[in-house]
Amino acid sequence: MEPKEHLKKLIRVARGLEKADLVLKGGMVVDVFGGKWIKNDIAIVNGIIAGVGSYSGVEEIDVCGKYITPGLIDTHVHPESSKLSPQRYAELVLSHGTTVIIADPHEIANVMGIAGVEYMAEEFAKTQLDARIMLPSCVPATTFETSGATINPKEISQHIKKCYGLGEFMNYPGVLNCDDECLDKILAAWYEDKRIDGHMFGVDEKDLNGYFVAGMRTNHECTTVAESLANIQRGCYVQLRMGSYTQNFAEMVGAVNSKNLHRFTFCSDDKSGHDILARGHINENMRLAVGAGMEAIDAVTIATLNAAQCYGIGRMGAIAPSYIANLVVFDDVVDFRVNRVFVQGKRVEKSDKSNTKKPTSTIKIKPISAKSFKDVRKDIAINFIKGSLVTERGIVGKDSNKLAVVERHKGTGNIGLCYINGFNLKRGAIAQTIAHDSHNIVVLGANNSDMAIAVNELAHVGGGITVVQDGKVIKILALPIAGLMADIDAEELATHLKELELATQKLGMDSDFNPFVSLSFISLPVIPWLKLTDKGLFCGEKFEII
Amino acid sequence: MEPKEHLKKLIRVARGLEKADLVLKGGMVVDVFGGKWIKNDIAIVNGIIAGVGSYSGVEEIDVCGKYITPGLIDTHVHPESSKLSPQRYAELVLSHGTTVIIADPHEIANVMGIAGVEYMAEEFAKTQLDARIMLPSCVPATTFETSGATINPKEISQHIKKCYGLGEFMNYPGVLNCDDECLDKILAAWYEDKRIDGHMFGVDEKDLNGYFVAGMRTNHECTTVAESLANIQRGCYVQLRMGSYTQNFAEMVGAVNSKNLHRFTFCSDDKSGHDILARGHINENMRLAVGAGMEAIDAVTIATLNAAQCYGIGRMGAIAPSYIANLVVFDDVVDFRVNRVFVQGKRVEKSDKSNTKKPTSTIKIKPISAKSFKDVRKDIAINFIKGSLVTERGIVGKDSNKLAVVERHKGTGNIGLCYINGFNLKRGAIAQTIAHDSHNIVVLGANNSDMAIAVNELAHVGGGITVVQDGKVIKILALPIAGLMADIDAEELATHLKELELATQKLGMDSDFNPFVSLSFISLPVIPWLKLTDKGLFCGEKFEII
Repeated sequence: MEPKEHLKKLIRVARGLEKADLVLKGGMVVDVFGGKWIKNDIAIVNGIIAGVGSYSGVEEIDVCGKYITPGLIDTHVHPESSKLSPQRYAELVLSHGTTVIIADPHEIANVMGIAGVEYMAEEFAKTQLDARIMLPSCVPATTFETSGATINPKEISQHIKKCYGLGEFMNYPGVLNCDDECLDKILAAWYEDKRIDGHMFGVDEKDLNGYFVAGMRTNHECTTVAESLANIQRGCYVQLRMGSYTQNFAEMVGAVNSKNLHRFTFCSDDKSGHDILARGHINENMRLAVGAGMEAIDAVTIATLNAAQCYGIGRMGAIAPSYIANLVVFDDVVDFRVNRVFVQGKRVEKSDKSNTKKPTSTIKIKPISAKSFKDVRKDIAINFIKGSLVTERGIVGKDSNKLAVVERHKGTGNIGLCYINGFNLKRGAIAQTIAHDSHNIVVLGANNSDMAIAVNELAHVGGGITVVQDGKVIKILALPIAGLMADIDAEELATHLKELELATQKLGMDSDFNPFVSLSFISLPVIPWLKLTDKGLFCGEKFEII
Repeated sequence: MEPKEHLKKLIRVARGLEKADLVLKGGMVVDVFGGKWIKNDIAIVNGIIAGVGSYSGVEEIDVCGKYITPGLIDTHVHPESSKLSPQRYAELVLSHGTTVIIADPHEIANVMGIAGVEYMAEEFAKTQLDARIMLPSCVPATTFETSGATINPKEISQHIKKCYGLGEFMNYPGVLNCDDECLDKILAAWYEDKRIDGHMFGVDEKDLNGYFVAGMRTNHECTTVAESLANIQRGCYVQLRMGSYTQNFAEMVGAVNSKNLHRFTFCSDDKSGHDILARGHINENMRLAVGAGMEAIDAVTIATLNAAQCYGIGRMGAIAPSYIANLVVFDDVVDFRVNRVFVQGKRVEKSDKSNTKKPTSTIKIKPISAKSFKDVRKDIAINFIKGSLVTERGIVGKDSNKLAVVERHKGTGNIGLCYINGFNLKRGAIAQTIAHDSHNIVVLGANNSDMAIAVNELAHVGGGITVVQDGKVIKILALPIAGLMADIDAEELATHLKELELATQKLGMDSDFNPFVSLSFISLPVIPWLKLTDKGLFCGEKFEII
């Protein structure tokens, strides 16, 4: 429709002179500006909200007894952590009411660089999900590991223009120390007037000022109320995170009060597809917030208006004339069960699976055999602690397992190798290509031969997660998209993950923790105290390979 | 300073590793994000706030016992209504703590068109005041009068790009009726993704939806609490106005509550320089709001953060790292007496007067003599009501005065002429070139000869306000810039206006009203019910010249 005809029609429908395309009748409609619910109709024409009031439409849907909110917004997410392809991810979160995500494809960027970022953007563009792509700022996370790609300041300069902003600036010590490369990346975003997401720990007044003076405006890493309030005072939006690994969401809700309400958003950061399936997406944040004592209207405001304001997303985050008709119909505002979802006035649909593009294999390794894992140092072991990402220094004992990190991007042949305690693997091996942030192959084993089989099997299928016992692959989940994602539904993913977990129990592991999640962080140098990368054992205290 | 050096210095100062350029020590510093005051230092470097905390600087100013807020923002103003040149206006409002204005030069645009808009932008650019120029959308206001210029949709298209947005869209009936010219102007703003200011009366649900669906996001015309709430629900920011003619500011403050606080801003709209001098600028809105029961912190938030968010003004409206160091030091937060003001970390200074550009005379009239005012219709008169802008239909009596509107832009010779009751002019004449919105010459007289002298005198000096008695000009204030403004200080303006008022009392007028203000609205057709333009008597009911 020609723009002027479109505008005329909007005005005429808003005034009640013409019928709307679609009217949602008689629901409790949220007014996020005034902080209240009003029983009313919503008139939609050409994907736009013409008005809230008393309307009739060509199509009318009775939503009496339901609650209508704007589409939910996830303000910080690495969608690759779902293990689902962008298209399957989009379908999943849309079904939970999320219509916009601020996506930082940091994981695939560590594997494929800019090409990975472009892949995510292209695939999301095929969906009804509005994914605003942030350019990953810190690839690789450290120089103590081999990643698949590097994004240097020059590339940031070249690509920032077409991205929505610069992704979470994790290297906050680099900022505080005025590291040239860090500042060049930040300046590249400044020059294009692009927003920069933050990632910062601590409450030191001077460090916070030193970090935020560089222009970051968000942070999803606060873990205490005091930290949240210190961030907010410095102009930062605090992103209340509920992902697969979040532990203290309810406590964090305690930071919200009537004066600072507008400085919070919700995010998921890292959330596996099976967790989204079981618990929800941003509607889980809302449910937990209300469970922790927050008014429902405030949870809705945080999930919609605040997020839109934080990220300058015009005509979204509210139900008002001229706003885009991204709408969620909830059965209730306690559990936030989604009844149906509209994107630009259209019901959400499943998309055609044949449409998914899959990057060719990203696994490049030198030949691996049992011998590859033979010579291990015995002077030290990692002590893994269940339920924690932090590890400790330990000694080799009879229950120690072998842990290896096999470089898988460039075929360097690098293998980091050590002993590790706490997993209690009695037999076999488990391996995976999800290993933050460089996503090399991490393999844990009770014997060298099964370790080699596991690694070779992953190389064969293009990455994934596998469990091997007595020379046989007893379970494998292929994640052929960059070794991180599969083009499968969340239901199928959940079944695979359940079977993987059962398979590890056959290897003698306890069932009270998830070894795949634990292994995915065992290679992340920035988390203390002792980690293994493809370059060897990394000590967080000395901040070097030891 | 090279950008990277600048950023390094910011970080090092923020971390306390280097001295700041300037530190304001020990004041109560507002945190508009958290809604609280904190006793702290503010460190400033290169015009930017590096941090709030404990700092030392090359220069330090003790502000213990004072209250520090961000620079105030006037979100809707026609600066010409001050009667001061942009440079003198800037000095005046800066002295009251206003550092940013959203300026809609609608008055000078009606006289000079786009050239007037450009003039204001150029003159403001010479000052420390950050004036964001909105392109006047409705010039002329109606077709029932002769203005100095027309800004048509094509000109809107040409000039919108370099303006901050499209100025208040006063012709709301035109929008509701899908008038082509109105929609073309709106679309011109849409295409360039520019904001559009609103101007809308009433509480009719469908009319409000019909207006706001066109994309307006602000309104300064609400006069009741119910109207404000209906506007807010529709995504509109309500601009609480305190100008020279506002009557119910305190009542309007009653619309603000803890849920909708963030949807209000302050504005002055039309405020004469002498009123700003006597009562303040946006700090008057704050004082009155607090007087009406609002918390000081909320008044500060409305005057700063809300305004910056409403107009997308980055790095302003708060005191936080990386924000621009526009700061106001207040003696107190009840009267909001300004102690000192900083713009980009520098104290506000008086500027050089020789720097003011003055447009050449804008007065073009055909020769006027006493005869010009001879033939007046006697079947009808305007009944002027003191204290109101609304007029009524009356009859000619012995106390009636003559009223004329002399077209002054194009030398058409148009003279609108009628009788008017209520001014009680016993002798002489008063005339002025301030006459909303076309700013022709309006002249009120007890005799034709003094009326002619008054008009000719204004033509001679390039516009202004004059009082004539017994063939002599007894007082004149020249406003040679477009017939609207003079390059004089507010103090001088106040003296002139006082003398003009005293002069009118010599003509027998009562002292309980301001005849110059009343006359400035007597020619505005959009205010009911009977007005006079250069084309004749206009009836608001019939919406035509009668």
